[in-house]
Amino acid sequence: MRMSRFHSLTWCTLLVAVVAIVSAQPQSCPRPTITPKVHHLKASVDTVKWGYYWNQNNPKLYVNSGDTVTVEMVTHMAGDYYDGMVKGDPALEGIYHWTDKQAISVRGATGAGDGVHILTGPIYMCDAEEGDILQVDILDLQPRVNPGNGKTYGVNGAARWGYQFRAGFLNNITREISTIYEIITDAQGMPLYAVPDFQFNVGNGPNTSCVPLNGTYPDAMENLTWSNPNALYRKVPQPCVDGKQHWTGYTYPGVITQHPTGNEDYSIRGMYKVPLNYHIGNIGVAPKYPVPVSSVPPGSHGGNMDNRRIGKGATLYLRVQNKGALLSMGDCHAAQGDSEFDGMGIETSINGKFRLTLIKNVTAPPMLKNLNFPLIENKENYIVQGYAYNHFLTDPTLQPNPQVQVLAPGSNLDLAFTGAYDNARQWLMDFKNMTEDQVNTFITVMCDYGTTQVVDGNFGVHLVVPKYAFTHSKKSYEPEVVCGTSTKLPKTCYKHSA
Amino acid sequence: MRMSRFHSLTWCTLLVAVVAIVSAQPQSCPRPTITPKVHHLKASVDTVKWGYYWNQNNPKLYVNSGDTVTVEMVTHMAGDYYDGMVKGDPALEGIYHWTDKQAISVRGATGAGDGVHILTGPIYMCDAEEGDILQVDILDLQPRVNPGNGKTYGVNGAARWGYQFRAGFLNNITREISTIYEIITDAQGMPLYAVPDFQFNVGNGPNTSCVPLNGTYPDAMENLTWSNPNALYRKVPQPCVDGKQHWTGYTYPGVITQHPTGNEDYSIRGMYKVPLNYHIGNIGVAPKYPVPVSSVPPGSHGGNMDNRRIGKGATLYLRVQNKGALLSMGDCHAAQGDSEFDGMGIETSINGKFRLTLIKNVTAPPMLKNLNFPLIENKENYIVQGYAYNHFLTDPTLQPNPQVQVLAPGSNLDLAFTGAYDNARQWLMDFKNMTEDQVNTFITVMCDYGTTQVVDGNFGVHLVVPKYAFTHSKKSYEPEVVCGTSTKLPKTCYKHSA
Repeated sequence: MRMSRFHSLTWCTLLVAVVAIVSAQPQSCPRPTITPKVHHLKASVDTVKWGYYWNQNNPKLYVNSGDTVTVEMVTHMAGDYYDGMVKGDPALEGIYHWTDKQAISVRGATGAGDGVHILTGPIYMCDAEEGDILQVDILDLQPRVNPGNGKTYGVNGAARWGYQFRAGFLNNITREISTIYEIITDAQGMPLYAVPDFQFNVGNGPNTSCVPLNGTYPDAMENLTWSNPNALYRKVPQPCVDGKQHWTGYTYPGVITQHPTGNEDYSIRGMYKVPLNYHIGNIGVAPKYPVPVSSVPPGSHGGNMDNRRIGKGATLYLRVQNKGALLSMGDCHAAQGDSEFDGMGIETSINGKFRLTLIKNVTAPPMLKNLNFPLIENKENYIVQGYAYNHFLTDPTLQPNPQVQVLAPGSNLDLAFTGAYDNARQWLMDFKNMTEDQVNTFITVMCDYGTTQVVDGNFGVHLVVPKYAFTHSKKSYEPEVVCGTSTKLPKTCYKHSA
Repeated sequence: MRMSRFHSLTWCTLLVAVVAIVSAQPQSCPRPTITPKVHHLKASVDTVKWGYYWNQNNPKLYVNSGDTVTVEMVTHMAGDYYDGMVKGDPALEGIYHWTDKQAISVRGATGAGDGVHILTGPIYMCDAEEGDILQVDILDLQPRVNPGNGKTYGVNGAARWGYQFRAGFLNNITREISTIYEIITDAQGMPLYAVPDFQFNVGNGPNTSCVPLNGTYPDAMENLTWSNPNALYRKVPQPCVDGKQHWTGYTYPGVITQHPTGNEDYSIRGMYKVPLNYHIGNIGVAPKYPVPVSSVPPGSHGGNMDNRRIGKGATLYLRVQNKGALLSMGDCHAAQGDSEFDGMGIETSINGKFRLTLIKNVTAPPMLKNLNFPLIENKENYIVQGYAYNHFLTDPTLQPNPQVQVLAPGSNLDLAFTGAYDNARQWLMDFKNMTEDQVNTFITVMCDYGTTQVVDGNFGVHLVVPKYAFTHSKKSYEPEVVCGTSTKLPKTCYKHSA
């Protein structure tokens, strides 16, 4: 039904409809109601921004504590497979349609196309003030189906910011490779898993054929600037001129020339199945900072955490840094392993349903009282997020240009590991009234450190703290990783298959 | 019954009995039988060694492929709680009893007490030759109950090799803290979980009271040497003289003065529950190396991997480096989180049941054909073990004293992460016939990197590869970490408790 409805709409009709929905939202805080409200924030050129958080952005939606909202989150990597992921989906066609006017209003902090992630929002939490806590319950995440082809695709780009460029290629042959994945569903349309479909060398080398932009290419593209003049993406030449590529590799996501031009490699098709673990790569409040903040490095505001545990059933707690909190989100993944090794998850578009709750600082429980990092909670665990630079914007070692310095190769896993430990130690001392010596033995004997991501400039390591520790159950415990670790083998273990 | 039997034995009686059992083992390869044999290798002064692997060690047991063997593994940390973990258990009393004669035969490579881990073995696999694969199926792990008190205790020592000494203490107050844990059982004696019992400052400062050694202290203790004259533990002064301590902190495990002397801190008692995940910290074949190899840094031979997945239901594959393989094992943990943050797991004594299988190189399947790292397999996953130095004994950057250099502070997590990637890439290319580009996207979208340990000199990182990838099931997948990561919430998730 959904497909046929979208099929029947023309592009112009939909554009008007989207604007109408957005316009219908109140432009200031509505009076709280006894029954929490249910909102829907569609993705469109009017509700998304590319590549930054900023406390000066105009809110796209006002909510009261307890309201639920469905948010459409659109991937910034759809340009790698225009035919499958953009074409036929009016919202994506609109967002990816690049004109001078649209670029100014939508893309990047300077309006010059210097964005990366497409973020929907910001959402304004009424009554939220600096120092409060925003609780984000992720009630549901569902893949976005392209009404044009009835399918959901995803992109995994092995980009030059991936760890393989640190670890080294065999024979030192460096390259950027994009892999297109398809979400496989059962007969009822329920997602089962993802399978790789094809790969291609991003850029395919200079002077290979390419598809020109589907809009007027703004002159500003020739002289990109971030808020900081030394930042990335500066003076990147236009990739596709007269049907020939003038570059190799990713310049930045969102350029729709980055889909294959006849050099697809299908040898990977169906080679393996990928377990789905839909999650939100990039979700955060606006940082308290005078200029726009790049969406690439994650921080105390959340942002590009790329932690696969920020999925359905999880709760995220964020310290509010500005009036209204100004929550934005995007960069969704159909799946990702801890580390996001090659630079991306399976980047795809997802519709998420959230309940947003405001916890005033004066009433915050010990678990949240002094929280200064993004805390994830699910039914089994607390997850403490740490970074190489827990507060990169104010870190004295990254001044005077923290947004540039944090992307320098100085980040490493030991810094991130220490960052996670520092956060966990203080949090457990506050939350459970532990001493430092009690924390050290506690986390050693029962908590797992994992490498969240090693590709976002500000490396992430997290600590998984099992709630079991503080329950009063007398039952034997089944560890999180169940097979091969316990005296009791659970029923859910898979059989030896190889 | 077991308790009463042990109670009725005197120390001398048991010693004779143990020797008799060991003597009953054949001293060369027995003829293979149609039905695999069942062996039992008790821990005693005659079957353990302290702190090293060596291809010149005399085998303590000969097995044929397919045999099963129960191995008693005794913790080297029982000296932290002599009254609870040594006293009353004749085998431990015997092993910890230190005389000139016994020290020479049991402890360390030099016979001078320079050992660390107590390792049972080696076990000789008949027909095994260099290049073959030894498959170790861990059929069962059960805690050792002290017949003297009917209890099982464990020790977690926050030692100076723990990561807290890298990350930094609050107010820079460095210290080593030991925490004693007790395994709680149900009415039928089934282990449920561990709880912390008490803590103490290791050493309690110089000139505090201490318990003298329960044997003649060998003169060699005053001038300890490892096989390399620059190694650790050299010229460590005798800790306890005339009832006063002359040192602070851990010199090395096995010194039985390291139990509290009235300064116990019981504030941690029962503060939390620790999920049990019994596993073997240190298990490996003898390295091909001309001198004894310290049991501290893990390597391609296995050894001190401290990977909590080496537990019941898991299989470990090791490349044989010497005739007979010469498998040894010890350093068991009742529980540990990934990283072994403070320097140890919950160190305890465990009886393990193993099936040992020899896979000749010529018949090895692709999964094992070129294996040059310890591979773990359980029902759900393969686990690829990597290190900062995958082959530390021959690593050119660690020469000429690799056993010393590998313990220097140069090890770090990025090296270990790269080590895990290097191992996984080659293994997947061999095993699944993948290209490098296929490996990169595969591990990114579905495999978790985790920090195995950051305390054994040669840091470890592992990659978890779900078997689900290669199954033909059409069912929806439940990820390994189930809550908050999937579209489907499993029944096994715990309820919000806090």
